[in-house]
Amino acid sequence: MLHTIEASRADGLKDIRAIHAESLFNQVIPFWESHSIDTEHGGYYSCLDRDGTVYDTDKFMWMQGREVWMFSHLYNRIRPDNRWLDYARTGAVFMQTYGMDPTGKCYFSIDCAGIPQVAPYNIYADCFAAMGFAEFARASGESSYLDLARQLYTGIQKRKDDPKAQYNKLLPSARKFRAFGFSMIQINMAQVFRKFDDSVEYETIIEQAIDDIVKYHISEQDQIVWERVALDGSHPDCMEGRLLCPGHACEVIWFVAKIAMERSDGQLLGKLSQALLWTLERAWDKEFGGIYYYQDAKGFPTDKIEADMKLWWVHVEALYATLLLYAATGEEQHYAWFRKIHDWTFSHFPDETYGEWYGYLHRDGTLAKTLKGGKWKGFFHLPRALAESIGTIDELLKIQGVGIHEKK
Amino acid sequence: MLHTIEASRADGLKDIRAIHAESLFNQVIPFWESHSIDTEHGGYYSCLDRDGTVYDTDKFMWMQGREVWMFSHLYNRIRPDNRWLDYARTGAVFMQTYGMDPTGKCYFSIDCAGIPQVAPYNIYADCFAAMGFAEFARASGESSYLDLARQLYTGIQKRKDDPKAQYNKLLPSARKFRAFGFSMIQINMAQVFRKFDDSVEYETIIEQAIDDIVKYHISEQDQIVWERVALDGSHPDCMEGRLLCPGHACEVIWFVAKIAMERSDGQLLGKLSQALLWTLERAWDKEFGGIYYYQDAKGFPTDKIEADMKLWWVHVEALYATLLLYAATGEEQHYAWFRKIHDWTFSHFPDETYGEWYGYLHRDGTLAKTLKGGKWKGFFHLPRALAESIGTIDELLKIQGVGIHEKK
Repeated sequence: MLHTIEASRADGLKDIRAIHAESLFNQVIPFWESHSIDTEHGGYYSCLDRDGTVYDTDKFMWMQGREVWMFSHLYNRIRPDNRWLDYARTGAVFMQTYGMDPTGKCYFSIDCAGIPQVAPYNIYADCFAAMGFAEFARASGESSYLDLARQLYTGIQKRKDDPKAQYNKLLPSARKFRAFGFSMIQINMAQVFRKFDDSVEYETIIEQAIDDIVKYHISEQDQIVWERVALDGSHPDCMEGRLLCPGHACEVIWFVAKIAMERSDGQLLGKLSQALLWTLERAWDKEFGGIYYYQDAKGFPTDKIEADMKLWWVHVEALYATLLLYAATGEEQHYAWFRKIHDWTFSHFPDETYGEWYGYLHRDGTLAKTLKGGKWKGFFHLPRALAESIGTIDELLKIQGVGIHEKK
Repeated sequence: MLHTIEASRADGLKDIRAIHAESLFNQVIPFWESHSIDTEHGGYYSCLDRDGTVYDTDKFMWMQGREVWMFSHLYNRIRPDNRWLDYARTGAVFMQTYGMDPTGKCYFSIDCAGIPQVAPYNIYADCFAAMGFAEFARASGESSYLDLARQLYTGIQKRKDDPKAQYNKLLPSARKFRAFGFSMIQINMAQVFRKFDDSVEYETIIEQAIDDIVKYHISEQDQIVWERVALDGSHPDCMEGRLLCPGHACEVIWFVAKIAMERSDGQLLGKLSQALLWTLERAWDKEFGGIYYYQDAKGFPTDKIEADMKLWWVHVEALYATLLLYAATGEEQHYAWFRKIHDWTFSHFPDETYGEWYGYLHRDGTLAKTLKGGKWKGFFHLPRALAESIGTIDELLKIQGVGIHEKK
């Protein structure tokens, strides 16, 4: 259901495809292959300074699960390169051996040798581990990892209404918000699982998550994608209620757009197309360029002191969202945003000297931190977005056989 | 034991005194008097935008306790102005009525009408409440608040080895660190309490806290004031172990220096004098000026993405620390730092238009947030530092009777 493009546009897209492929295959993947693999204990280092120096050896389960998923996904999607399978395996084995507590929940962090550090308070650690094991099971054909993924998945569905359990600091009398992020990860996980498992459950979960997003988070009236919505659907006029996170909004929009495209659901695509334009119009920094990390719906200060920083993941999620919505709708505004975001992103984040991208810039685009990986930056958003972008451009250009298409 | 200063130096100090007094009495105090008092429910709003607009009405117990302390302290120290006593009372009554859970621990936050929001997971809320009640008891002469302060104080001493209780995410097998901040607040609380209570306990607590700071945190060998130290006194080579917080270091240095001055302990003052110089030399931004928020002892990235921002409280704590160490030692390097910090601070943080100071600047000194108050910025560090500064300059200049001295 992709629209047809003109020859001049095709040339522009070919150029961009080349830039994205160069970055993915020559700058990004080699950096993580060279610096993140812990050949002594297994698993991955994620705290990597500009040149790849490991500045902290702890292993954060978010980052372990994501890297297992990413190497497995490269193997499944790009080409069955055994090095990628080996890199995925070291993380999968390490997570299986050390990553979970006796009740099967994922620790938040463990040290490089597997000694538990921070308790399983964060359900997203389990979500990324489940996705990692599932994608690795598909790559390796080893069903024990699929069993592990399903166990985690079942545990997540049981815990989802009280994910923080004892660590939840919100009191019974507190105002409560619907978690946007959880709807998002539900779609993300279900997308991974349904590739090898036709159980209706995944479709139901996707349906429920999309319904929640459309009903509660995408507001036509406010022209806002709300990060947080009260349980009754209202928007409490407080810092928490007004907080917007444009990167999350872009990420959700492309997750849901993929499904809308499969279903040829033009109405849903129309909503997503609008929501993306509101988000970018509001979040683009008119003075320095780039997209803000956090905003307040009424323009007040947020409680995040880093709100106006420019983060790599926000930009790559917005980059891919605009490309996909352009591919799906042919809307020229999306193409214009895609080019604008591409230009700002590629002129600010990549490090030509040591490879990979910087993660954290000041509002004005200057470098805030030299790190290439950390507690919250791993091998995930950037390679995923670049691979998706190359795949979508190939579909738009009807290019066949260049090895980026999904393995059957 | 203050040293004698020359006439030319005295003139410079008089000028600075005038600037600090102008800021405190005409810019800072009136802003909080006008905008933070909740005349409907009692207590204080702390989320105040540039012009004083309340952008969130929740009440954070850190900020409530600190503001009660500050208004009471102004009354006790500057002059017995009944407005200040009334402002202190509204917070003290609100905290007493709504601020504590049935077991007597302070909530982290409640809404403007007192409905509990975030659980008592943070022992510093209790510390600031205890200090607030105690200082208010001294100002008002109402002993029921002293009882309340003592109850909180006793609770804190009981909980201090496991302050986070169920909310502690660190596992038994995790590496553990000694909390610098807790030694600091112990000194701070004891200083408040011993003004009206001669119990030996406070002296013992001060002694213990100073011993810990000198033994574990101030390292001659490394020329570092360590924010975190392992329980065995070692410095694990990881992000957590290497994290430095120059603002905290400066604050602790002046807390301890006050006690060293009382005791005429020249050896301790010598250590503190050195520690302050190491801290500033390391933390001063040689390119843009100002003091970093966080640093890594080895120069690696920290896990704080806001590490290179310039925060008001860091600068006012450093400002007062350099003045006090100059007053105590006559060391010219401290005076040079004091002037340098004064000039950068006063040319970047104050807002002449609406009063108060901005709190959060980018590394290059440009404004990052318009807020004057928030979840973590209230009526505390800035007025305290300015009042201390005026008091110390008066002592240096042997000025008498200008109303800044401690009420007997």
